Amino acid sequence: MGKQLRLGAFLLGCGHHSAAWRHPDSPVERLGDITYYESLARTAERGKLDAVFCADGHSVREPESGASWFLEPITALTAMARATEHIGLVTTISTTFYTPFHAARLLASLDHISGGRAGWNVVTSMFDQEARNHGLDTMPDHAARYERAGEFVDVALALWDSWSDDAIILDRRGRFADATKIHRIDHEGKNFRVDGPLTVPRSPQGRPVLFQAGASEQGRELAARRAEAIYSVAYDLPSAQSYYADVKARIEHSGRDSSSVAVMPGLVTYIGSTPAEARAKKAELDRMLPTAQSIRQLSLFTGQNCETWDLDAPVPPLPDPELFDGPQGRYATILRIVEKDSPTVRELLGTLAAGGGHATMIGTPRSIADEMESWFVNGGADGFNLMPPTYPHGLEDFVDLVIPILQARGLFRREYEGATLRENLLGPETLNRSESQTSSSMHPKTNNTAYKVHRHITS
Amino acid sequence: MGKQLRLGAFLLGCGHHSAAWRHPDSPVERLGDITYYESLARTAERGKLDAVFCADGHSVREPESGASWFLEPITALTAMARATEHIGLVTTISTTFYTPFHAARLLASLDHISGGRAGWNVVTSMFDQEARNHGLDTMPDHAARYERAGEFVDVALALWDSWSDDAIILDRRGRFADATKIHRIDHEGKNFRVDGPLTVPRSPQGRPVLFQAGASEQGRELAARRAEAIYSVAYDLPSAQSYYADVKARIEHSGRDSSSVAVMPGLVTYIGSTPAEARAKKAELDRMLPTAQSIRQLSLFTGQNCETWDLDAPVPPLPDPELFDGPQGRYATILRIVEKDSPTVRELLGTLAAGGGHATMIGTPRSIADEMESWFVNGGADGFNLMPPTYPHGLEDFVDLVIPILQARGLFRREYEGATLRENLLGPETLNRSESQTSSSMHPKTNNTAYKVHRHITS
Repeated sequence: MGKQLRLGAFLLGCGHHSAAWRHPDSPVERLGDITYYESLARTAERGKLDAVFCADGHSVREPESGASWFLEPITALTAMARATEHIGLVTTISTTFYTPFHAARLLASLDHISGGRAGWNVVTSMFDQEARNHGLDTMPDHAARYERAGEFVDVALALWDSWSDDAIILDRRGRFADATKIHRIDHEGKNFRVDGPLTVPRSPQGRPVLFQAGASEQGRELAARRAEAIYSVAYDLPSAQSYYADVKARIEHSGRDSSSVAVMPGLVTYIGSTPAEARAKKAELDRMLPTAQSIRQLSLFTGQNCETWDLDAPVPPLPDPELFDGPQGRYATILRIVEKDSPTVRELLGTLAAGGGHATMIGTPRSIADEMESWFVNGGADGFNLMPPTYPHGLEDFVDLVIPILQARGLFRREYEGATLRENLLGPETLNRSESQTSSSMHPKTNNTAYKVHRHITS
Repeated sequence: MGKQLRLGAFLLGCGHHSAAWRHPDSPVERLGDITYYESLARTAERGKLDAVFCADGHSVREPESGASWFLEPITALTAMARATEHIGLVTTISTTFYTPFHAARLLASLDHISGGRAGWNVVTSMFDQEARNHGLDTMPDHAARYERAGEFVDVALALWDSWSDDAIILDRRGRFADATKIHRIDHEGKNFRVDGPLTVPRSPQGRPVLFQAGASEQGRELAARRAEAIYSVAYDLPSAQSYYADVKARIEHSGRDSSSVAVMPGLVTYIGSTPAEARAKKAELDRMLPTAQSIRQLSLFTGQNCETWDLDAPVPPLPDPELFDGPQGRYATILRIVEKDSPTVRELLGTLAAGGGHATMIGTPRSIADEMESWFVNGGADGFNLMPPTYPHGLEDFVDLVIPILQARGLFRREYEGATLRENLLGPETLNRSESQTSSSMHPKTNNTAYKVHRHITS
């Protein structure tokens, strides 16, 4: 069997389209109801997806437009762990607001509770509003955040390795554990001082799987050094290929095997039995956007007076990027969407409102599978982090209609191969319990970089 | 129906006797298995207990003598929430190591996930070893910790009140929420700066129930000001009465109704069909203690050379406290145990090894019910936090044998009365969702002390 796609489901409120909650079928009344998230996780598991993925934020933004962060993700994913048996559970934890001991401990506990299915999306957070909920006046600058993040991850890895696999003896007439196999880590760095060991004995995966979403220079470097799966942003195949080639080269450059790291762009899908039906699903959501507000935003994003534009006419020609003096990233995305899709103004607003620059595939199950395959075989993606515009229907459509086609083509699993997220996502040859154990008990002071462990197990 | 006992089950590893894991029947192989804790929670719920209670620690101490902190408690209790329907879930969170935003958010999320059954045991932590896992060299001193704890709880309460109950509108053609009912808290204090609002909308209980275990002067003051249930330590009825009277007076002094706060001493029980069988259960565990180590400790605790003592002879006479220049608290407990129980040396070691100074009742279900009732009716306790020497058997014995007697006497519920921990533990007249809502929307700036809310609802 050839290489296969990696697929996650990025859970978010009523879906990734910001008007999703307005749809008559939306589950908006259930956003505080854990059984809603449990049923999404079960749907994703029915589709044999690698993982469900939860983002996180530490401030309320625009409460009038929907509550993205209703439940705290670690607790929500713990409940989802108990409602499923195979699927991975990837939680976002901010390295700016937690201590590494908290993060390592919560993740190790989730890994025990889920039987080895925990993943960690490492983020540094962005907004001053978030900083001001945790005692800071503003966010540390980008460089300081990433420096802290790098050290934070190093400490977490060392804490996970602080109990050797064979530390626990359970000899009722002798010792509970072998104290010589429970190591202090004695970390003293620029940002942290942590003695260790962790209070939680080694978990089934040893090390929960590290996800990262690095777009900036420092983000890509952290991803290259540490990430085992990367959640990326690319609207079209050329930009996906460009990111993919760059980050894979960085991974190799940092001495790791780049084929062992899964690059997974976000993917918004509108699925219909005909292309027209798929487009109609998008159009229905796009019509629910509060237009005045979106148009005001678009004026900012493009430097044009969009209030005069006809919502249902094509987007008028836009000036070259060098003539636009606002934020370049967003503007480049808009130009790319206009070039690829020739949308109407309303369609553009809707595309920005769902994923905002992530790959957006609109069509039949077959055409979407074709497009995914094209990204996969042409060096754009090792898989995708699915961002259905609506939950639960957008995910159900994908699982029921697209997954079987991918399976028939040999591009996606029919059953989970392994017991842990690590085994399913990264393959059976990945770092596993006993190998990590070997290195950790034999080389307590030299195994604390993913690079060395990786080389050990892939060589 | 008269006033009834409040009962919690303090979950801890294989039980509260430090040799419990050595027992042939012990579940020591399952300490990392969440189904073990779920089954304990279900047993406690079968007994209609108010809550399960998890302690916490941020360092590994004496790993050779058993792993007390195997799982992180918030994640473990989240899983237990999904395995039960009625019982409260009380997690310990340290105000020294978390930020109030994290604590409030995790607890609010657990409250949503559990349908209103979250409780928070507020602790300040104690050990330098813990501090050194979170970046500090030593623990802040006791006064600084309690000052921080007081402000921490104030902030958490304000964050829980930051979403009014009717903030969420869910008008699909209009607004998701009424932004005027989602308040910033704009807290700037000595220890914290927190803008708010919380990212988690108001949870079923509004405010998860506050537990505290204050023994020191500052601990008692914090308990008096904020606690809704108090986990206390008393070996015998006179010391229980003394603590009870003191803390109830402090609660009244701080302007709250002391009958609305449940004082729950820890309680270790050895239950047999005869007194001899009960004593044999304790003796069996006591025999499993590693004696040399315990005797060395006892020498320190008493200032005597205990190595010369006969393990199975009565404890020799001990000097008056004023002649002992070691730690007074532990020595006073030892004198109290010797005076009350006239134990052999081995029995004393076992009593110290299980609960270490908490009430210890050894006997038939009836004699234990009698003793509990005596504490209850004589101003020693409003209930108990059960500390079975062994799990699961010690808890099963209590639920199957003692609970029916308490129920028959009208001292304990036969069914849960309310839907939330707050309603079950504190009664139907307690702060509930709509009342808190009323005060929070009408007096957004003046309702942020439990005292005022309490007066509002009890007057």
